[in-house]
Amino acid sequence: MSESLMQFKAKTAMIARLGQAAGLLGWDQQTYMPSGAATARSEQMAALGQFLHELSTSDEIGNLLAKAEAETAGMPDDSDETRMLRVARREYDKATKLPTELVAEIARHTSIGQDIWARARHADDYAAFAPALEKMLDLTRQAAECLGYKEHIYDALIDNYEPGTTTADVAAMFAELKPDLVALTKAIAESANPVDDSPVKGNFPTEQQKALTLEVIAAIGYDLTRGRQDIAEHPFCSNFSRDDVRITTRFDTKFLNQALYASMHEAGHAMYEQGSPPAYEATTLAGGASLGVHESQSRMWENQVGRSRGFCRWVAPMLKKHFPDSAAHSNPEAFYRAVNKVTPSLIRVEADEVTYNLHTMLRFELECD
Amino acid sequence: MSESLMQFKAKTAMIARLGQAAGLLGWDQQTYMPSGAATARSEQMAALGQFLHELSTSDEIGNLLAKAEAETAGMPDDSDETRMLRVARREYDKATKLPTELVAEIARHTSIGQDIWARARHADDYAAFAPALEKMLDLTRQAAECLGYKEHIYDALIDNYEPGTTTADVAAMFAELKPDLVALTKAIAESANPVDDSPVKGNFPTEQQKALTLEVIAAIGYDLTRGRQDIAEHPFCSNFSRDDVRITTRFDTKFLNQALYASMHEAGHAMYEQGSPPAYEATTLAGGASLGVHESQSRMWENQVGRSRGFCRWVAPMLKKHFPDSAAHSNPEAFYRAVNKVTPSLIRVEADEVTYNLHTMLRFELECD
Repeated sequence: MSESLMQFKAKTAMIARLGQAAGLLGWDQQTYMPSGAATARSEQMAALGQFLHELSTSDEIGNLLAKAEAETAGMPDDSDETRMLRVARREYDKATKLPTELVAEIARHTSIGQDIWARARHADDYAAFAPALEKMLDLTRQAAECLGYKEHIYDALIDNYEPGTTTADVAAMFAELKPDLVALTKAIAESANPVDDSPVKGNFPTEQQKALTLEVIAAIGYDLTRGRQDIAEHPFCSNFSRDDVRITTRFDTKFLNQALYASMHEAGHAMYEQGSPPAYEATTLAGGASLGVHESQSRMWENQVGRSRGFCRWVAPMLKKHFPDSAAHSNPEAFYRAVNKVTPSLIRVEADEVTYNLHTMLRFELECD
Repeated sequence: MSESLMQFKAKTAMIARLGQAAGLLGWDQQTYMPSGAATARSEQMAALGQFLHELSTSDEIGNLLAKAEAETAGMPDDSDETRMLRVARREYDKATKLPTELVAEIARHTSIGQDIWARARHADDYAAFAPALEKMLDLTRQAAECLGYKEHIYDALIDNYEPGTTTADVAAMFAELKPDLVALTKAIAESANPVDDSPVKGNFPTEQQKALTLEVIAAIGYDLTRGRQDIAEHPFCSNFSRDDVRITTRFDTKFLNQALYASMHEAGHAMYEQGSPPAYEATTLAGGASLGVHESQSRMWENQVGRSRGFCRWVAPMLKKHFPDSAAHSNPEAFYRAVNKVTPSLIRVEADEVTYNLHTMLRFELECD
């Protein structure tokens, strides 16, 4: 390995570790942080955001990156080194377009906004969240203007999640999907034979749901020695190394689907992160390739696996063990139909933590309950 | 306020927030971190330790400090500004004596050692911990040599916990206390009328102990909206702002004293931190004045209050509520005698987190179970 590349990797690894620390602060805010600590946490996130940005955009990093690029110019285009530097270049060029003050302010406000959102959601009070959302949108628009774009302001942002994708690409995809999806949803809504979802409704105590979801996600391959499941206002996956990938879920004691499929979805994200090669740890290649690939993993486990007939047969004995008095376990075919019931609902808007940003933006657009 | 002082305060506040983030990583390691994450966590702690040290010892900080000192030279000796700068000067002069590599290595090894210690303690296997302890002592001796001392190498370290105190001071104190303590302990051990501690022994399920301890520490004034209690291998108090002061405790289902008095002790530390003036937040004056003052708070609640007759009468109804079938609540005088039973035991050696270092070193010397 070239000397410049080694120096560059060592320096960026240190910065990556600082980013992982920021990730833990975000996780903690949504799981165990005392409510009174919200202001202090936002100041901690702002300080970390500022230092991270200063370090990532320093002349030292810029020079090391340029030297490493020059020294590795002859390497294959798909070698780890070349790919690592390609991602680093993309991130460096973007980061240097953003003023540090804006980055710190976004980190601070993301943390403050998270606190306001969680309270507002709890109280079902959108008005309480609206000013925080407005401010977040304003800051995000400022960032987009700094990053620049050709056609649509959102192009500057979508690129953070799905590199190279544009708003026009997504619009074209939705335009193609929309007619069939609308017709399908209409047909389902008007069906004379609506799906009976009574097997997943009833009384499902939280402790038993915890036990069930842990049993299921461990069985499908989520390594709980390098992860854990906690409760949060909204399910999310957050990682601070491939060896520390945590998920959250949410329990509805009257409706089994909520936690079971949220846990499987987040475990899908988590297994993808846990499977990131050890050699990529604390490099620009660590973790997921893009949000699209990430969602392909989470939704495969949630839907292709979790809502299949095979899964429904397989999970029946576990349902019987944890909920012996429920109808959920007695008829796998009825359970299969129940977990596949489709109903129109509001788009889910997700306030997510600043460091696990792969998650947020596209979900905002695509995901429904 | 002078301009230099304002700039100095702003910069050191940012660094303090980074230190608070490091504190949270230490807390997490001892409470919720998955076991497989130990190596990643030690790298995160090393990176934070390195950045913190680089920032705290930068020329920028040194120059701001010198200017602020010059501009505030005429202020009263006990003004907040003067005291803030006095502590900052002490810390800056110490920090600049330490090489950054050593600081990062101590942070890394403190985290690794914590993991090894917790496993070894769990397995009651001192040999498994010995090499880590040896390495920690070696690194700590290196730090002491860098810091310098006149008489005893430990003088360089005790100064971190009780500024201005020397090993000779502590030795003189112990020399005075020792004869009477030895005689007292001997008299107790040889007493023909040993204390009956059966009221605090028996069957005390963890969940009820959790409820009891939370009720007690809330009643004595620990603000749980700015704190929380979790379980750890060893009880400790850790704070990441005056508005986020967390404690841990440990439950022994056969012995009530363990958790009850650990919780009161740690809540004593925590209330002291929660009472730190808001204006001191993220300054060098935040938190406790010294380890001695800190322990005066924890031990006052644990012993002067918690082991008093008045407390034993006051807590009896709570004991009855949580442990209706136990003898603990039926006779406050018997409970009072039981919780004051003195027995010789091994010195408690405490592996503590790097950022709450007020706690560690003197306890290592002074504290008994």
